[in-house]
Amino acid sequence: MHAALPQGEQEAGSVDSSASPPRDLRRIDIHPDHWYPLAWSHEVKRGRAHGVRFAGEPIVLVRPESGKVFALEDRCAHRQVPLHAGVVDGESIRCCYHGWTYDCTGRCTDIPYLGRERLPNGVRAYPCREEAGLIFVFTGDPSLAADAKFPDLVSATDKAYKTRRFGREVKCHYSFMHENLMDMNHQFLHRRQMGSMRARSLGRRRGEDWIEVDYTFAREAGKQPIGEALVFGQKRGTQPDTAHKDVMTVRTEYPYQTLKIRTKDDTMVMDLWIAYVPLDAEQRTNRTFGLLSIRRPKIPVLLDTAWPLLVWFTERIFKEDRWIVEREQEAHDRQGADHNHEVFPVIIDLRALLMERGVPSRAQAERGHDGHDGRRVLFIQPIQELPAS
Amino acid sequence: MHAALPQGEQEAGSVDSSASPPRDLRRIDIHPDHWYPLAWSHEVKRGRAHGVRFAGEPIVLVRPESGKVFALEDRCAHRQVPLHAGVVDGESIRCCYHGWTYDCTGRCTDIPYLGRERLPNGVRAYPCREEAGLIFVFTGDPSLAADAKFPDLVSATDKAYKTRRFGREVKCHYSFMHENLMDMNHQFLHRRQMGSMRARSLGRRRGEDWIEVDYTFAREAGKQPIGEALVFGQKRGTQPDTAHKDVMTVRTEYPYQTLKIRTKDDTMVMDLWIAYVPLDAEQRTNRTFGLLSIRRPKIPVLLDTAWPLLVWFTERIFKEDRWIVEREQEAHDRQGADHNHEVFPVIIDLRALLMERGVPSRAQAERGHDGHDGRRVLFIQPIQELPAS
Amino acid sequence: MHAALPQGEQEAGSVDSSASPPRDLRRIDIHPDHWYPLAWSHEVKRGRAHGVRFAGEPIVLVRPESGKVFALEDRCAHRQVPLHAGVVDGESIRCCYHGWTYDCTGRCTDIPYLGRERLPNGVRAYPCREEAGLIFVFTGDPSLAADAKFPDLVSATDKAYKTRRFGREVKCHYSFMHENLMDMNHQFLHRRQMGSMRARSLGRRRGEDWIEVDYTFAREAGKQPIGEALVFGQKRGTQPDTAHKDVMTVRTEYPYQTLKIRTKDDTMVMDLWIAYVPLDAEQRTNRTFGLLSIRRPKIPVLLDTAWPLLVWFTERIFKEDRWIVEREQEAHDRQGADHNHEVFPVIIDLRALLMERGVPSRAQAERGHDGHDGRRVLFIQPIQELPAS
Repeated sequence: MHAALPQGEQEAGSVDSSASPPRDLRRIDIHPDHWYPLAWSHEVKRGRAHGVRFAGEPIVLVRPESGKVFALEDRCAHRQVPLHAGVVDGESIRCCYHGWTYDCTGRCTDIPYLGRERLPNGVRAYPCREEAGLIFVFTGDPSLAADAKFPDLVSATDKAYKTRRFGREVKCHYSFMHENLMDMNHQFLHRRQMGSMRARSLGRRRGEDWIEVDYTFAREAGKQPIGEALVFGQKRGTQPDTAHKDVMTVRTEYPYQTLKIRTKDDTMVMDLWIAYVPLDAEQRTNRTFGLLSIRRPKIPVLLDTAWPLLVWFTERIFKEDRWIVEREQEAHDRQGADHNHEVFPVIIDLRALLMERGVPSRAQAERGHDGHDGRRVLFIQPIQELPAS
Repeated sequence: MHAALPQGEQEAGSVDSSASPPRDLRRIDIHPDHWYPLAWSHEVKRGRAHGVRFAGEPIVLVRPESGKVFALEDRCAHRQVPLHAGVVDGESIRCCYHGWTYDCTGRCTDIPYLGRERLPNGVRAYPCREEAGLIFVFTGDPSLAADAKFPDLVSATDKAYKTRRFGREVKCHYSFMHENLMDMNHQFLHRRQMGSMRARSLGRRRGEDWIEVDYTFAREAGKQPIGEALVFGQKRGTQPDTAHKDVMTVRTEYPYQTLKIRTKDDTMVMDLWIAYVPLDAEQRTNRTFGLLSIRRPKIPVLLDTAWPLLVWFTERIFKEDRWIVEREQEAHDRQGADHNHEVFPVIIDLRALLMERGVPSRAQAERGHDGHDGRRVLFIQPIQELPAS
Repeated sequence: MHAALPQGEQEAGSVDSSASPPRDLRRIDIHPDHWYPLAWSHEVKRGRAHGVRFAGEPIVLVRPESGKVFALEDRCAHRQVPLHAGVVDGESIRCCYHGWTYDCTGRCTDIPYLGRERLPNGVRAYPCREEAGLIFVFTGDPSLAADAKFPDLVSATDKAYKTRRFGREVKCHYSFMHENLMDMNHQFLHRRQMGSMRARSLGRRRGEDWIEVDYTFAREAGKQPIGEALVFGQKRGTQPDTAHKDVMTVRTEYPYQTLKIRTKDDTMVMDLWIAYVPLDAEQRTNRTFGLLSIRRPKIPVLLDTAWPLLVWFTERIFKEDRWIVEREQEAHDRQGADHNHEVFPVIIDLRALLMERGVPSRAQAERGHDGHDGRRVLFIQPIQELPAS
């Protein structure tokens, strides 16, 4: 009667064709060789330092009076205390404890009680860029930063759109976030906000480092809420004819995610860009940074007027999503392995992508969670995708 | 000078004659093949689901509109989120996330976005019975449920008695609870409520799955409190002649415990039934469910009038007991082994019974607490029991 | 660019000439064979018991009506519950649970329900002394207590001084406390309270179980705060001529620490005695007991009047110190090894002393933190000390 066995113990054709057992997705770290947003611009004030965290690494963001933010390891080379508690001094940061001083390259340029000919090496510096109100840090091998892809944040700076910046800390592995947004069959979770909606998957596409899926939606009962109309486009009755509907495209382009809604004339009415940044070394928490851009209508003041309602509506939705993904993480922590029984091909593909692009968890391996606990996790044969109509 | 060595390191004849080292009682799990109360009836409302826990297993109790409660594993087969957050739909429960639906046998009967011919197996179902205001679940092998002994709760439904339902979560292993209630030499703990009382053990009896002991009590100083008179019978002065006293019998009939007080004419004036349900996988917390039945006097209104005092009195006693058993668990956690130095034969026998009827802890073994830490725990030779007079 | 490697991985002449890898100082337990203050006298009231803790060992301090405090293991030999919750009965302590009774030697003298000819051994007793408002316990081998050095607390009982007793629990290894107080180059931390001060080390001396260093201070900018004047002596302008300055001597005489300020005529104007008592078994927290004695001026009332200001000032300083050493402990916990990059010879010597006099951590070894994690921690070549002028 007990169906919640680890998937590998079930007889089924495996999507993953490799010989070795697939690893637990929740033990795959996000790949560090990307540009990650670590703070909002307004969080790092001029003449101040701000401490953040990426996958357990403490990083200090410093905005000297000149304004250009730089990023260093957030530990004084001397006694490892956080540099973010220090004092910005010209273009340098001075540790609060004994006053050791570092420039934007991490070099130690002064120890007040020591001759300058004997200074130690200093601390690690990270490549840093500020775009669209976000401070991005290249968290991996710095020699790869210059050639690394930087995310497209066009809508967030396009005046045709009004953009909401949002996000919170969420106590789960980043992969749950990707799965939650991409699987639109979870509308049942938002039934109080959205009424009875049915998503219909029109088909999926996949590239080397991305996957995307198109959806249309049909209302099964009730009226469209006003908040939803603002976010997902105008109210169009309950006609079943999908040809007249807006199309939502959800895309994971590693490591980011987007959700775009286009009308039948291919106008993009909504553009959401979102990133999930692991905070702790075990990557069981993430901080979410989202840019939600809504195309301004012909009478722009309408959008401004309705904005508080949109904020309220999206907060409610995000709160429900946050709650459920934290329950998923809790279940994983208790079960000690991924017991998910996924049947939706889009999510099965997404999981494979996240697995391929990430790296095995170092922190969890050090704690003995190496996945070799006798519970092997395999993919079961997926169901056929619903044909696009 | 240090006497608190593990008992096995002391030279003493061993009560346990087996060759292999006795295990630590606090690493013995309660046996799952019994009926355990997991909730009060009033906690599971019609048309609602309620999440509970047995030894780390999440269980959802569902009361559909028809009224008959059923019990399932509290994890959706899909993504392992708690079913108790779902929606009761007719005689089924629907998961809050993607709407997967389960009937009272745990079978998955609907996935809204998937054809019905491809449904997965579902989740585990548990045998479930509702009696005397409690919802009982058979937590072990379901094929044994029909023949398993069900507790005798006669007094709780007998109109000759008035019954108080009580209980709380207590942060200790269930075995400390059994020992606390059975060892009436701990009256010193309740000196503020009870005054100076001295228990006298009249003798013990033991069967295959039970042990019981009789006590009489003598007041050493002070007056009998009114609360105690209500619970333990009428005030009788301080005469030392035990022939005229009430007899208290404390019995562990695995896994339950009872405490009955009978007058010299063998009328049962008080009947307490109590169960301790482990909550976490390591069984270091338990939820207590107690039914305290007091025989109605000839003028029944007296009992109703005095009831609030009785509630207050028993809460005070229970609070003291809860405090001390939690300190015992704390000591065990810090010492990493059972350093108890038991001298009372009744409790030595009780410990042997609990050891025999339980099963070695799986959760603690997984965490490396397998008892083989070089500290062997043996029983020392018990003192002679006081002769019954 | 990453300079915060464990020190052993850097090429450098090693101060420690031994062949085996030096241990991590934060995994060195304080040596138990000393007299440690475990409570203030006023915390142990007549007729009461008070529970304290030394490196994970629970100890009960009992003050019977006669007034002379004694110290026992704070666990009843019977069921290991804390004796400090018991009742002081004449010159004995009676356990709150079943009333087992212990005298000042730890001997069990009564079990109310058991004949006296069969009493168990009892519990460990500790040598105990009360001096200068502190209750000292000898926490190690009791046979060494009589010959062990007892700290000199003369100023705290000398009427020429007014003494403040202070201290708090601090969440760090005791060694961080010693380093903090002895390295006066950390005045930058107290810049808000002290203004811009520069310490100058005049030289250090070392004996078998002690090390001390002399400092003078020069004000680099701003005025002397009144609080500082009270603690560190009279205001003397900003003249650079050190010949006219007071000399501060900081000394670690294992396991205690002192800080004395003497004027040029060798009058001791301030005498601080301080001890750091590990609380938990891993010794990652300590309780600080400090006696700060200020020499009374010729018009004594001035000191009394200014006392609240002195209390406020020292609390502010101590709060900053507490904050920074807790950050040091956090960094050590996260990095899993001592990554300190010490350059100040006084502190390098102090660390060697604390290492030699302590004992390897048992609790951390049991948890697998034995230092053999491939990160060897070595001392790098120290800088030359500033010549005394």
